[in-house]
Amino acid sequence: MKPALRALIVVVVIGLLTACTTGPRPAWTYTPATPSIAPSGQPSGVPPTAAPGSDDSVLPALTAKADLGPVPAGEVNTAYAPDVPPAASRTNQAIVEVAFDVVEGVQAIGPNGLEYTTWGYRLHGDTTVTTGTPGPIIRARVGDLLRFSLTNTGTMPHNVDFHAVTGQGGGAKDTTVNPGETAVIEARLLYPGMFMYHCAAGDVPQHIAQGMYLPIIVDPRGGWPTKADKEFVLVQSDFYPKGSVSDSTLMEGDWDAMLNGKATYVVFNGKAFQYKDAPLQVEEGDRVRLFVMNAGPNLRSDFHVVGNIFDRVYPGGNPAQVIDGVQTWTVPTGGGAVFELTFKKGQSGAGTYAFVTHAFADASKGAVGLIQVGKAATMAGH
Amino acid sequence: MKPALRALIVVVVIGLLTACTTGPRPAWTYTPATPSIAPSGQPSGVPPTAAPGSDDSVLPALTAKADLGPVPAGEVNTAYAPDVPPAASRTNQAIVEVAFDVVEGVQAIGPNGLEYTTWGYRLHGDTTVTTGTPGPIIRARVGDLLRFSLTNTGTMPHNVDFHAVTGQGGGAKDTTVNPGETAVIEARLLYPGMFMYHCAAGDVPQHIAQGMYLPIIVDPRGGWPTKADKEFVLVQSDFYPKGSVSDSTLMEGDWDAMLNGKATYVVFNGKAFQYKDAPLQVEEGDRVRLFVMNAGPNLRSDFHVVGNIFDRVYPGGNPAQVIDGVQTWTVPTGGGAVFELTFKKGQSGAGTYAFVTHAFADASKGAVGLIQVGKAATMAGH
Amino acid sequence: MKPALRALIVVVVIGLLTACTTGPRPAWTYTPATPSIAPSGQPSGVPPTAAPGSDDSVLPALTAKADLGPVPAGEVNTAYAPDVPPAASRTNQAIVEVAFDVVEGVQAIGPNGLEYTTWGYRLHGDTTVTTGTPGPIIRARVGDLLRFSLTNTGTMPHNVDFHAVTGQGGGAKDTTVNPGETAVIEARLLYPGMFMYHCAAGDVPQHIAQGMYLPIIVDPRGGWPTKADKEFVLVQSDFYPKGSVSDSTLMEGDWDAMLNGKATYVVFNGKAFQYKDAPLQVEEGDRVRLFVMNAGPNLRSDFHVVGNIFDRVYPGGNPAQVIDGVQTWTVPTGGGAVFELTFKKGQSGAGTYAFVTHAFADASKGAVGLIQVGKAATMAGH
Repeated sequence: MKPALRALIVVVVIGLLTACTTGPRPAWTYTPATPSIAPSGQPSGVPPTAAPGSDDSVLPALTAKADLGPVPAGEVNTAYAPDVPPAASRTNQAIVEVAFDVVEGVQAIGPNGLEYTTWGYRLHGDTTVTTGTPGPIIRARVGDLLRFSLTNTGTMPHNVDFHAVTGQGGGAKDTTVNPGETAVIEARLLYPGMFMYHCAAGDVPQHIAQGMYLPIIVDPRGGWPTKADKEFVLVQSDFYPKGSVSDSTLMEGDWDAMLNGKATYVVFNGKAFQYKDAPLQVEEGDRVRLFVMNAGPNLRSDFHVVGNIFDRVYPGGNPAQVIDGVQTWTVPTGGGAVFELTFKKGQSGAGTYAFVTHAFADASKGAVGLIQVGKAATMAGH
Repeated sequence: MKPALRALIVVVVIGLLTACTTGPRPAWTYTPATPSIAPSGQPSGVPPTAAPGSDDSVLPALTAKADLGPVPAGEVNTAYAPDVPPAASRTNQAIVEVAFDVVEGVQAIGPNGLEYTTWGYRLHGDTTVTTGTPGPIIRARVGDLLRFSLTNTGTMPHNVDFHAVTGQGGGAKDTTVNPGETAVIEARLLYPGMFMYHCAAGDVPQHIAQGMYLPIIVDPRGGWPTKADKEFVLVQSDFYPKGSVSDSTLMEGDWDAMLNGKATYVVFNGKAFQYKDAPLQVEEGDRVRLFVMNAGPNLRSDFHVVGNIFDRVYPGGNPAQVIDGVQTWTVPTGGGAVFELTFKKGQSGAGTYAFVTHAFADASKGAVGLIQVGKAATMAGH
Repeated sequence: MKPALRALIVVVVIGLLTACTTGPRPAWTYTPATPSIAPSGQPSGVPPTAAPGSDDSVLPALTAKADLGPVPAGEVNTAYAPDVPPAASRTNQAIVEVAFDVVEGVQAIGPNGLEYTTWGYRLHGDTTVTTGTPGPIIRARVGDLLRFSLTNTGTMPHNVDFHAVTGQGGGAKDTTVNPGETAVIEARLLYPGMFMYHCAAGDVPQHIAQGMYLPIIVDPRGGWPTKADKEFVLVQSDFYPKGSVSDSTLMEGDWDAMLNGKATYVVFNGKAFQYKDAPLQVEEGDRVRLFVMNAGPNLRSDFHVVGNIFDRVYPGGNPAQVIDGVQTWTVPTGGGAVFELTFKKGQSGAGTYAFVTHAFADASKGAVGLIQVGKAATMAGH
């Protein structure tokens, strides 16, 4: 199943009945599914002090957990790449509730339908999704409380290490679940950015190499400095299938190849070259924000768009730092960045524009896609 | 032929007779050599609005094309590396006209005269140049209109993707020419920086691995924040010749080696170790600006000068961002940066200083050169 | 011998008897051990002018060498990693005197006691240290005069290239010593940062691959912008031992593996996985500063701490540039950076936190360690 073709699927917001926008809210009841694991999140009712360098150092202290309500019903918090759920229109902090299942599946990662045994994540209970590399995007805001539950519907222990989450293992310790178990964590999201999350159970690079990762976007409290007409998520990763590609259609991971960085495929959003066949769609005049995450496990991403120049890059995805007007910027493995660019009529108007890692051996292995810029129906607004 | 030894060759400035500094100028007549290819440049007479993050966001709008004249007669717009044509003394925008031919040649890329079949660029009509890796430097200013023509004197389709140019393929679409054809594009240079251009025809990494690249320097509108006494261009790239180096003196590209990043040579300006034999020449007291581009196709450049510290690095070559006082900075593949440093008497005075990528396997393969700092004849001015 | 277990060893401060805090001081007598080598440091009594971009561009000119005294008796200038000597409490400039011997030894670099023939540095005369990879840390301040002597107690020529030092070879030319010789250099430290020093004698990458490196911390003149409760040094490097790891316990370097970047071990502070067994110790509430250097010789470091977010990263270790709130930052080979993060109760409190290069093949080869966060005894001050 192609992530590019997946429909936007909304997560069921639990607790709608208790949501209200005025007046005091009931304290959130923390009910760990595996009581032996201590929650890594905020103790109830204790507003943390501002983290230096975070948005909070210049903004009011975080709202006490007891005063938070769940994210409003109309807001979507997850999607599958490259679609990005919209940023919150609210300006208050909220509880963002997300529930995932583990999915150990089979995924077409190469051209010609070549399949690979992947491990990943899907939205809880959505058995129509049979593979999960990369898993669903989470989108929240600085100051939000992430309430995350993971149900292990697989065959071995898994968990989640959120780079956006502070606390032992980024939540990995408290989300480690055996098959059949569910774990819940709560954590305050303190920094804006384009963060990676990934499985950190067992042999970590194996779980990454099998595809257990996806991004969490934490929007700045005051929103992004500039408006974007279109937003996409692009997750670069490298695959190390064993055996001859020509002989096999179902491939397992090759540990030695992974250790030597000899990737067979380098991909965006789980499948080589997929956006050459199905380009990302924008319109002339659009300002586009690309949330780029580099899952690795090994290779850097020297991210570039052919025929355009990024007018802004936010390293780490944190608008505290901005790089102006560059052709190429490196996204480290295990890191993220936000790239912004405009497709202007008369400069970079209607046509197709490739995005690549300019480390071209990797682009040759699949890390290249297209952005289709359509002619604007009208010039209004552009 | 050694690029290091090539004389500075000025490009013939077409249109001198029509140049004047006052009064209205005739509109530039766009005459595409291959009429089926639409020009990617600015429509005549339409001043684009400022690009966010570009110089233009804080400067007056670009001059309409109709009001531009060609660059003045006394200015040089091209040179071969490491020589850099001087920055424009003018402060107005102009039409920078550059004409290149394709050259499929043979070049000594390794020590002991080992030769490689390279593809590259040379100045139009200059048949004394029999190889073109890297091709000629272009130097222009933000706001200039680049009028570029490419004549394919080779045996297969080629083109140019300018990272400095916005528009489909960075011009690659409109400059794709079959043997015997000529194409012309015009494009406004909107961002300052140290940009790569390269052939993006056929199998892109192959054309890069064969050597079809060079830099275009786009100076900031107001010039660089600090004055430099000497300027050089250094283009790092990696070569993947096939077969045993000891058995052969004429080598072809090895696709598998390229895909695995197993470079035989990593070079500056087309030949391993060339600046160990013929160091770059500066004088005590000189402030030096190094325009470093990393063509790849694969390897990063962790650029460093032994025995000195960069007082400024401009990532991307855009002075909008400055890194102060660092020993080493990474230039991504497909990217560029500007490095500035001073050779002061009593600190880093007369002597020899090596420049390298500090990824030392690559330095061992040729990416090391020397800067010879001569004793200042007098102390005046220093 | 495990660097992690080495006791903090203070360097004998030479010249205590002549030290005083008021009144004129005698000029330092420069006595090169090898008189044919000219000193690369400042000429006596000549205050250099400010280097653009350095601390000095906004601070008073450097003190003349004749007016400097040695570093006060109570201050420690060296230590073995991961311990960091304390920053100078003084605000004046001083002469920092450091004396090292070469040590060609044998060091356990892998798990299970696997040993490798390493070359390194140790404090002069300290024959209890039988291996020196990485060698001792030097800590000084911007404006200090480093007086460094190297005695070659090994079997082949060695030297030191200080990235913190301006002058031919970063001091390498003037410190090149044959077995039995001693060389002395003096050099003014002009830029703050986390710098590498390494042997640049003979075949440079071989000397690096054998382990001849360590960091020199040059504190900003005004100190670091924020206070840290704990500081550690982490030096990442890659080892290329020859032969089968399972067959051998004493390994030599493998040149071909080094040229191909096929590292067997990637380590922090000289031994794979050492801080998994013996974690770095901090307490809840501590603000921690990590001085990270990447010696290579080849691999980049995508440095990350699991379960925390860097609230500040100083690329190059120069506080002139700060990156706020990022999950992962690349330290180039031959470069350094300073990372700051806080282990707050309720956010990232008591527990264990892994630090890694998120290029996970390298983490799998040893570049992973732990930070043990102990429960704070009291909440006072936190």
